[in-house]
Amino acid sequence: MCADSRRAGILLHGGAGRYSIDERRRRILENAIKEAAIAGFSILENGAVEAVVESVRVMEDSGVFNAGLGSALTLNGYVEMDAGVMNGRDLSIGAVANLRGIKNPILVAKKVMEETDHILLAGEGAYKFARMMGFEDSTDKLITEDKKRKHRELVDKWLKGEIYKRFSKLKRFYNQNVDEAVGTVGAVALDYEGNLAAAVSTGGIHIKLEGRVGDSPLPGAGFYANKYAAAVATGIGEYIARLLLSKYACDLVERGKTAREAAVEAIKYITSVFGKNTAGIIVVDYKGRIGADFNTGGMLRAYLGEGLAKPLITIYRENIF
Amino acid sequence: MCADSRRAGILLHGGAGRYSIDERRRRILENAIKEAAIAGFSILENGAVEAVVESVRVMEDSGVFNAGLGSALTLNGYVEMDAGVMNGRDLSIGAVANLRGIKNPILVAKKVMEETDHILLAGEGAYKFARMMGFEDSTDKLITEDKKRKHRELVDKWLKGEIYKRFSKLKRFYNQNVDEAVGTVGAVALDYEGNLAAAVSTGGIHIKLEGRVGDSPLPGAGFYANKYAAAVATGIGEYIARLLLSKYACDLVERGKTAREAAVEAIKYITSVFGKNTAGIIVVDYKGRIGADFNTGGMLRAYLGEGLAKPLITIYRENIF
Repeated sequence: MCADSRRAGILLHGGAGRYSIDERRRRILENAIKEAAIAGFSILENGAVEAVVESVRVMEDSGVFNAGLGSALTLNGYVEMDAGVMNGRDLSIGAVANLRGIKNPILVAKKVMEETDHILLAGEGAYKFARMMGFEDSTDKLITEDKKRKHRELVDKWLKGEIYKRFSKLKRFYNQNVDEAVGTVGAVALDYEGNLAAAVSTGGIHIKLEGRVGDSPLPGAGFYANKYAAAVATGIGEYIARLLLSKYACDLVERGKTAREAAVEAIKYITSVFGKNTAGIIVVDYKGRIGADFNTGGMLRAYLGEGLAKPLITIYRENIF
Repeated sequence: MCADSRRAGILLHGGAGRYSIDERRRRILENAIKEAAIAGFSILENGAVEAVVESVRVMEDSGVFNAGLGSALTLNGYVEMDAGVMNGRDLSIGAVANLRGIKNPILVAKKVMEETDHILLAGEGAYKFARMMGFEDSTDKLITEDKKRKHRELVDKWLKGEIYKRFSKLKRFYNQNVDEAVGTVGAVALDYEGNLAAAVSTGGIHIKLEGRVGDSPLPGAGFYANKYAAAVATGIGEYIARLLLSKYACDLVERGKTAREAAVEAIKYITSVFGKNTAGIIVVDYKGRIGADFNTGGMLRAYLGEGLAKPLITIYRENIF
């Protein structure tokens, strides 16, 4: 089926959270991640980086995840997106943080990797770079009437003290619960040459402070890839970043664990430090073995690899990966 | 001299680089880091976080390092600074990236840690947050005529192809040599309670792209602290971040190495992957043992701990730490 008992394939996630959703919403999410898995896998012969970027791009464009067109609004009504991509072969990285106005942050992140010697551009500089690289401004598509309505409702509830109660002062704006973070997207892949890659994209936490950077664009935190494994984490970025969770999972594979063992141990680790409802992770290792785990109600995920006719898709624990 | 054979103290660096400097410049740098070491150590009884932040603040205000008032200009003439602080006791983090106009990014980073549930604010959002917290705008002090003159010279040389030759396209703006990065500042400390902390601040690479974020504000990359060790790295941020060098050093201490062994191994590691002239690192461990290493000509550093009457200061290899 594949050389060296290696199995090329791509593993995606669409966010960890409570997932108390109805059948209609579930179908929408599953169809969107299915399309993304097929899109990435169909170009896996172009390399792991191309595949994970394409899968993430499709999820950004779907509008149903909290990434790209579906991105949440900041407290003061902006869309500020984070994204990152890493090539496990040479450790090259491209990432953007607080990028406004561009509907595909993952494509800008890829340009950072290809066209600069930097690894991360943020804010206004990231936007100017994107425009210089030919990306259109899509602010009108990113900040829609529908999102503004939802945003006003959230802010109203917050001002009335109905949500985000746990914190005093500025801390109130932030809900220490991963539910709001549902919909961050990510992909990891092993290609036919044996190279690994990871990609991630997010709109961040709803009504976050302007300028807030989560784990997603931070190497080792929201994503990592080397010659042993590729990993993408999702959840409360502030916790994930403190433990460098994606790097942690890759290190476990380097020390002999399988992708599945690494995913399980990584989630055990963050649960032991910061509690439940904090994170999910997807991992693929150098043999193409996959692993996913989460300490939330569910994590939407899809896998498509050599020998499979169509993507395997699941949300909850009862399933096969 | 100290309880549990632990020795409280603070270790600072003022940047790794070639250090082919004259006697006058050397005296200026050594006096500045000496003052910073004394300032931090004098408040070490307030805790490791307070001490490292105070040492870094003094170096930012000295104007002689590439941090705070001394920060380099971006390609298009802005000052955009990165800083971060981490408390090893509870893993709390505060960091800012691409902060403009505020002369003490490390103090804003500390406010991010204390006043928000985020760990990293970037760009315009970071600036607005700083202003909201009462910090003054010091743009006129940050962008001086002297810096503008130096900046014009660098840009002229770059346009003529005299510097930054190695790269094509956008890559040309970036000198793959750590000399330009001299002057990033950092501090690590162990306090009398046995708590560890790390702090870092930088103006980043000269004539960097607007929006560029280096390793300094990235947890695990430019800084890290937990109950085992605290580490701060300096050099080519894009390389340091790919290897999560500060976390790497702390992991080594967790696995039984001393601070010195961890520093030496971390530099060996980055040298093996990205070559010489790429990085320096300072480490303090839970016993207060210190370590510093670098693969450049020198790294300005200072140490002041229990039982010492004044700071030990050194730049090159011939010295004691």
